Amino acid sequence: MPGSPRRGGGRPDMPQSREPARSAAVLCTEDSTVARDLARSAAAPASASSPCGWLRERDRVTGMSVSRVDLAGLRGWRTDPHGALRHESGRFFAVVGVEACAVAAVPRWSQPIIHQPEVGILGILATRVDGTVRLLMQAKDEPGNPHGSELSPTVQATRSNFTGAHGGRAVPYLDAFRLRADKRAWVDVRQSEQGSWFLGKRNRNMVVEVEAETDARDGFAWFTVGEVFRALTADSLVNMDARTVLSCLPLRGPGVAGSLPTADEGFSGALARSIVGSDGAAHRTTELLAALTRERSESEATVIQVPLTDLPGWQRQAGAISRLDGAFFEVVGVEVQTAGREVASWSQPMIAGLPGGISCFLVTPIRGVLHVLIALRVELGFVDVAEFGPTVQCAPGNYDHLPSAARPRFLDDVLTAPPNRVRFSSTLSEEGGRFLDTCTRYLIVETDSTDEPPGFRWMTVDQLVGLVAHSHYVNVQARTLLLCLQSLAFADASAG
Amino acid sequence: MPGSPRRGGGRPDMPQSREPARSAAVLCTEDSTVARDLARSAAAPASASSPCGWLRERDRVTGMSVSRVDLAGLRGWRTDPHGALRHESGRFFAVVGVEACAVAAVPRWSQPIIHQPEVGILGILATRVDGTVRLLMQAKDEPGNPHGSELSPTVQATRSNFTGAHGGRAVPYLDAFRLRADKRAWVDVRQSEQGSWFLGKRNRNMVVEVEAETDARDGFAWFTVGEVFRALTADSLVNMDARTVLSCLPLRGPGVAGSLPTADEGFSGALARSIVGSDGAAHRTTELLAALTRERSESEATVIQVPLTDLPGWQRQAGAISRLDGAFFEVVGVEVQTAGREVASWSQPMIAGLPGGISCFLVTPIRGVLHVLIALRVELGFVDVAEFGPTVQCAPGNYDHLPSAARPRFLDDVLTAPPNRVRFSSTLSEEGGRFLDTCTRYLIVETDSTDEPPGFRWMTVDQLVGLVAHSHYVNVQARTLLLCLQSLAFADASAG
Repeated sequence: MPGSPRRGGGRPDMPQSREPARSAAVLCTEDSTVARDLARSAAAPASASSPCGWLRERDRVTGMSVSRVDLAGLRGWRTDPHGALRHESGRFFAVVGVEACAVAAVPRWSQPIIHQPEVGILGILATRVDGTVRLLMQAKDEPGNPHGSELSPTVQATRSNFTGAHGGRAVPYLDAFRLRADKRAWVDVRQSEQGSWFLGKRNRNMVVEVEAETDARDGFAWFTVGEVFRALTADSLVNMDARTVLSCLPLRGPGVAGSLPTADEGFSGALARSIVGSDGAAHRTTELLAALTRERSESEATVIQVPLTDLPGWQRQAGAISRLDGAFFEVVGVEVQTAGREVASWSQPMIAGLPGGISCFLVTPIRGVLHVLIALRVELGFVDVAEFGPTVQCAPGNYDHLPSAARPRFLDDVLTAPPNRVRFSSTLSEEGGRFLDTCTRYLIVETDSTDEPPGFRWMTVDQLVGLVAHSHYVNVQARTLLLCLQSLAFADASAG
Repeated sequence: MPGSPRRGGGRPDMPQSREPARSAAVLCTEDSTVARDLARSAAAPASASSPCGWLRERDRVTGMSVSRVDLAGLRGWRTDPHGALRHESGRFFAVVGVEACAVAAVPRWSQPIIHQPEVGILGILATRVDGTVRLLMQAKDEPGNPHGSELSPTVQATRSNFTGAHGGRAVPYLDAFRLRADKRAWVDVRQSEQGSWFLGKRNRNMVVEVEAETDARDGFAWFTVGEVFRALTADSLVNMDARTVLSCLPLRGPGVAGSLPTADEGFSGALARSIVGSDGAAHRTTELLAALTRERSESEATVIQVPLTDLPGWQRQAGAISRLDGAFFEVVGVEVQTAGREVASWSQPMIAGLPGGISCFLVTPIRGVLHVLIALRVELGFVDVAEFGPTVQCAPGNYDHLPSAARPRFLDDVLTAPPNRVRFSSTLSEEGGRFLDTCTRYLIVETDSTDEPPGFRWMTVDQLVGLVAHSHYVNVQARTLLLCLQSLAFADASAG
């Protein structure tokens, strides 16, 4: 296939590097102090200034109005010769058609999907004041946000942002993540985003420590980990990009123990033990990785790009692209007017997910250590076939008309769980720059069963935290749930 | 780009799995007993039966004759409409042309490369007898091997092997690696192969424990880890596939300490401490991963396939494809006659590397812990842009006519090292199924300098072993060197 582009490069026998000069090796910073100080910050008592109040203040000065428009009338967007919807600058992102072939148990499948092959940066600046971590968060509104501004990473930059394709202002604080950051990095890992809506999308998730707490610019503020954790319990206060970055923090190991509740019994004790280490884990981590290797190696699925204009099962109607049966999602157009962004107005396509989506962790103590039931998920847009995902991840409405055998495993266990087994429930928005009013209810539900059907594995929290240190092991919904589970562990600590 | 195939698949909201049914979670096997028993096996005293004698026996019954033929006259191979050399069955592998564009510091670069996108299995069966690991090795001859049969994995199977494309016999022991292996897997990870000669090639590296030592079939024998380690010091006795699989074994941690020499001083003590743990490592592992993330994220290189017949700088002459300046490698044709293989005769293209290639680890104790100087390497065929590689990896002949500034960093330090600083030196063959008489001299050289120029990082052995548990972090030459370095640690132990 001549002309098919691939990433990579380099001449044989010629190591190259984009790195600036550096000096001799230095002593490593101990990871364990980072974990300890993160835990202290997670358990720190609430202060008077809450993220919620601050975000509402911000919304008064920024304001954004979003209206639906016909996809055919989006300013600056057009259908290219390959049938993809693309910005006339060639930048930002495209909406393309894809067809998945030869997926063993599932018939041929076509859909629209967002294509944005560049790797952006989602970065949070951190500092330590008296051994307690504080994070520089941004109040950021996006056209798809359901309730206005949300807590966002310090920097949320596509490559178009770096290169000025927006024609807008320079991105504040970006330099801290671009220049020699690895010495001060607590996190620097590429992670996938929604594999059903993004084709091969990944962003660099970064947390970088800076020496001193700099003055926050307008629209930025410093918060403790605990303040962000508590904000997760409110609807759509912490955006998806902040959630994925924070889920990658190394909040594990014995250094964390001092800040966790000391209860030996019950859910809290089991959760604390699951965070501190993996003694008593149901599976060795090697075994978990082996399951993923097999799934990835044995897949014979391929995904090809096809014209957006002719996707079986999809129609273009009322200015949008939607399924004939109304399932899954629509591609819609929006026109945006704003006061607080680089550019005052723009139009763009967005994905509007079917309302009522849920993502859930079923959890249970196994020999006194809380375990999470993780599913091996194949999603069409993943860079590498399969990742670990939530126990249940779906929009239940898609299955209303189907026989119960076609319903996702464990869905009914989640929907019918008694309230006292629902340990966490919060409705959080997905990335508001691409998804319009698309929220997911994130649930953590306790179960008594330790069953492990094919395609599922019980894991400790410590194992999950170990996995998210590497790229493309844990999907974005499971990363949000991991963060929610960690917040639960510290909820008692900070309340006490 | 319609029609461009991508791996992946699956319908949104529908987790699928190829897994057979399994029952409830079970207690994990402790990793530490595996490490302990591997170390015991590495330190076990030599037995009377050496791999060398056994391999010479085998060569008497198998025998293979290889002759160079014109690429144009290879039976069953032809140039396809895209200018690639391909088997008429569409299976096995192809030789294609590639062009790398927009690599920052390097001009446009074209070359032939082997394209074989399927993931094969390289698997070794292991067992434990009285707490000592034994490995089932195969004596396998390949057309490119310089001296006949070599110690090879139990199973070395391409997907063409599984599916019978060779028209040959079933692969012995293959089922042990295909059916529910993850519970008994010590290793199951996809790893890259030579990124300058293979386009996106990776194989599944597996070590699977079986209950009892089964009778070895004809052409197979059980060896201790120590016996394989000692065989590394002889030229081309342990093949590349065996080396990469064995390098992924979890030979690390406190369980290993009991089998290592107890010397506190000098090289042996520093090496032992580097294997047992990463206390005193020059860099946190997070920092090492961050360096790789940056290299991979900031690359703007792309590789496109182009016709093999028209590569700038390359010529087709005397039945082979070679560089106008004679550098790097040739693509040649061979005709093979054999007694001991599935198929009695065949022809195929092969790559013949420039003689004299070397791969070297520079090592030095830092605060009493041996560190290896690892290079961040960009190779055109890597699946993911960059991996960690040896300090020096090149064929020095390529640089003979170039000014010293163009020579690879540290090359001259290696070539002029005094003999007493050369801790390991052995000339080992690269994969003899694809590379004709292509050997690399693997060197471990001690240095006094702790300099760390841009693009290099000092790492402990424990950190390297941790990295090879994941895919695509450490390249195949560095994995061989890691194995050689481990063998050095146990050389004293088994001699005493």
